Amino acid sequence: MQEIRRYVEKNKDDIISDLRNLVKHPSISAQNIGIDECASTLNGIFRDADITTTINRVNDSNPILYAEIKGTSDKTLLFYGHYDVQPVEPIDAWRYNPFSGVIADDKVHGRGAADSKGNIIAMINGAKYYLDTVGSPPVNLKFLIEGEEEISSINLPKYIEENKDKLKADATVCFDASLTQSGTASIYAGLKGLLYVELRCKTASVDVHSSLAPIVPNPAWKLLRALQSIRNDMGKITIEGWYDDVKVPNDEDLVLLKRLDYDEKIITNEYGIKYLINDVKGKAALKKLLFEPTCNIAGIYSGYTGLGSKTVLPSAASVKLDFRLVYDQDPDKLITLLRQHLDKRGFEDIELYIFGSLKPSKTDPKSDIVNAAANAAKEVYGGKPSIFPNMWGSGPDFVFTKILKQQSIWTGCSPAYANIHAPNEFIGIRNVLDGVCYAAAIMKEFSRS
Amino acid sequence: MQEIRRYVEKNKDDIISDLRNLVKHPSISAQNIGIDECASTLNGIFRDADITTTINRVNDSNPILYAEIKGTSDKTLLFYGHYDVQPVEPIDAWRYNPFSGVIADDKVHGRGAADSKGNIIAMINGAKYYLDTVGSPPVNLKFLIEGEEEISSINLPKYIEENKDKLKADATVCFDASLTQSGTASIYAGLKGLLYVELRCKTASVDVHSSLAPIVPNPAWKLLRALQSIRNDMGKITIEGWYDDVKVPNDEDLVLLKRLDYDEKIITNEYGIKYLINDVKGKAALKKLLFEPTCNIAGIYSGYTGLGSKTVLPSAASVKLDFRLVYDQDPDKLITLLRQHLDKRGFEDIELYIFGSLKPSKTDPKSDIVNAAANAAKEVYGGKPSIFPNMWGSGPDFVFTKILKQQSIWTGCSPAYANIHAPNEFIGIRNVLDGVCYAAAIMKEFSRS
Repeated sequence: MQEIRRYVEKNKDDIISDLRNLVKHPSISAQNIGIDECASTLNGIFRDADITTTINRVNDSNPILYAEIKGTSDKTLLFYGHYDVQPVEPIDAWRYNPFSGVIADDKVHGRGAADSKGNIIAMINGAKYYLDTVGSPPVNLKFLIEGEEEISSINLPKYIEENKDKLKADATVCFDASLTQSGTASIYAGLKGLLYVELRCKTASVDVHSSLAPIVPNPAWKLLRALQSIRNDMGKITIEGWYDDVKVPNDEDLVLLKRLDYDEKIITNEYGIKYLINDVKGKAALKKLLFEPTCNIAGIYSGYTGLGSKTVLPSAASVKLDFRLVYDQDPDKLITLLRQHLDKRGFEDIELYIFGSLKPSKTDPKSDIVNAAANAAKEVYGGKPSIFPNMWGSGPDFVFTKILKQQSIWTGCSPAYANIHAPNEFIGIRNVLDGVCYAAAIMKEFSRS
Repeated sequence: MQEIRRYVEKNKDDIISDLRNLVKHPSISAQNIGIDECASTLNGIFRDADITTTINRVNDSNPILYAEIKGTSDKTLLFYGHYDVQPVEPIDAWRYNPFSGVIADDKVHGRGAADSKGNIIAMINGAKYYLDTVGSPPVNLKFLIEGEEEISSINLPKYIEENKDKLKADATVCFDASLTQSGTASIYAGLKGLLYVELRCKTASVDVHSSLAPIVPNPAWKLLRALQSIRNDMGKITIEGWYDDVKVPNDEDLVLLKRLDYDEKIITNEYGIKYLINDVKGKAALKKLLFEPTCNIAGIYSGYTGLGSKTVLPSAASVKLDFRLVYDQDPDKLITLLRQHLDKRGFEDIELYIFGSLKPSKTDPKSDIVNAAANAAKEVYGGKPSIFPNMWGSGPDFVFTKILKQQSIWTGCSPAYANIHAPNEFIGIRNVLDGVCYAAAIMKEFSRS
């Protein structure tokens, strides 16, 4: 560890400069902004580390970067990451330009700094450390960096299916996660799934004067009725069969949960949240985060939303919903249930548009890769890492566990409250440098397993 | 009537040129665009007709134009109108520039052409006819033209209160309405009131990642719950006491309703409306339009509404609601009921912002001014005019009936489907010229009553 630390300190300026370069290139997959340019910059960073990548596409997907490095053992680790980022709106809530990569307070600021460009820089430099010092890493390495993680990895499953042999490894490390609230590593042996849809209701070809409200249907009221029918006031989804395939938490999950801590006051303070649902606290809050399926309104829009008043009866209304799924709900099956639910209740004319979906995923928490990461985390961050039976976020973990049929964990080096998906995202310089050490240590530890 | 017609034909070019000039001056009160310039142009049009106006303000209101002309009888009529217009959004839905005043298909096109600049031009030229031919009109005339009708006439009540003596008349003619579907005049002996509010729910200081949905409250879901609590699926408002002061329709109203026709297919075709609430038809539709209080979602907004998907849990949600009120609901009382309703149901933290309100208003349909207008309408448009016991739109009629305590009607010369408050507003050249005759005839008929 001393040796890696020294290497990182020596190369600190280059490492941070590469990260700032990457943050300065917008790569917003939802809005198709700057993707190719960012992929090309990332490719240059790999090349400067003497790692040769190929750039691949499935259908008209964003570029998928892939690289291999021969190691000194016969173990193989696949590292996964993503270079695309979330939209920046609301733009006026940002202290710094979200694509400036400015350094202030020992942090790199900008969209994607934490999610997940800082993590990518850490994993590349973890490998570079071995290449620069001993010539090759302790395990065979495969890198897979995609550009559609923030839009539900829509083309990744197809790419994985088509490249099963090439991507085969003993385990996957998805280096895209954050540290715990107390600054130790988080290791996730499972992820929630996601189903992201938009419901659209259109009742006329143009907006009309609101004096017609006694006889002309209002699509916003109709959409609200549909929304109220799919979720009750306690947050439970009221679509028939929605929970049929839920298999968590199992006994092993509950044992892991017992060892974990959660302080809900950190997020309420950080985000100015006035109260939590049912004033939930501590471990009870964590249990809900890890195992509760949700239906969240990510956005809703209809009619006149500008300054002042306008007496208009809208012709259309739409809502974006993200459903978080737990093991082993199947998004394709749930889409059918949702459509049937709407049709049965007179909402046949509400259009259901699917933005994307991710299956939930689960890995044995006693597997080699979990142990290797836990040992690496102890060395770098000290203390015991937190091993989670599930993550409250979602990601394309199922492509590794269900398509490649290999163990997979999610871990990473960004801080716990880095404003990911929100204004003022950042990553600490210390977080990036620790991340390089952590990635390198995982490679070493896995070679011994 | 022959004489007025001849006068109008002779002065046609000047009349239409004045209207185009007025349409070319934007005067969007909701966005504070071009108000003073438009008032000044209108002032010039009065001056050219040899009518001296004064420009008045209450607090920091938009200019209120006022003029008086001595007549040959001791009867006095107050003509009311407004020069402000609705916003033009969505701008790309307009065939012509909304402020070009372009002539095509014998129509003047543009925002405000029908609502209500064409009506203003008609009433000014109705008076000018008498000034140019016999030297003075058959009744004393008072003109009151405001610039805040489209923002609930927020300062008009105060102006009326402060100028009760000056504004005193035997009756008011609010020349701001449209013809019927069949092209005869509409005369409204009453108007709906309006209460325009915004409900705002804020639960955090920033948007957060939607993976926190199991524990962090979503303001959009909360706002939806509040909305569902104030209106049922049948459109009835479920706030306790909301209907307590409703006094219409009375027997006289129902007698008038019997004489009226309504063809709902005209609006469904015109606006591409797929169906009407409960498939209501004809007179039943008209009855609902005239007498049903409504709660309309004019606009709703929360979270991410841009392209694609964003997994965000919004920190705030807001909805603009317009309530149409019927005689004799009191908006101030209803605001209190709404606030109490929300507070009782755990929505104390939903902020209630009041944009403006108008009291409902009613005039005796057997009064002199209704008869005078009906006779004038027969002369100009032929056939029987439609006398409505109420209007489905709203306006500041209560300032005349409740503050000045005088009879008041709403009538006017714009066509039935002129796209008011919507893209592609227009008025026919024929409509404007008939309107001049109609205004002049009302003055004459009222002098005989």
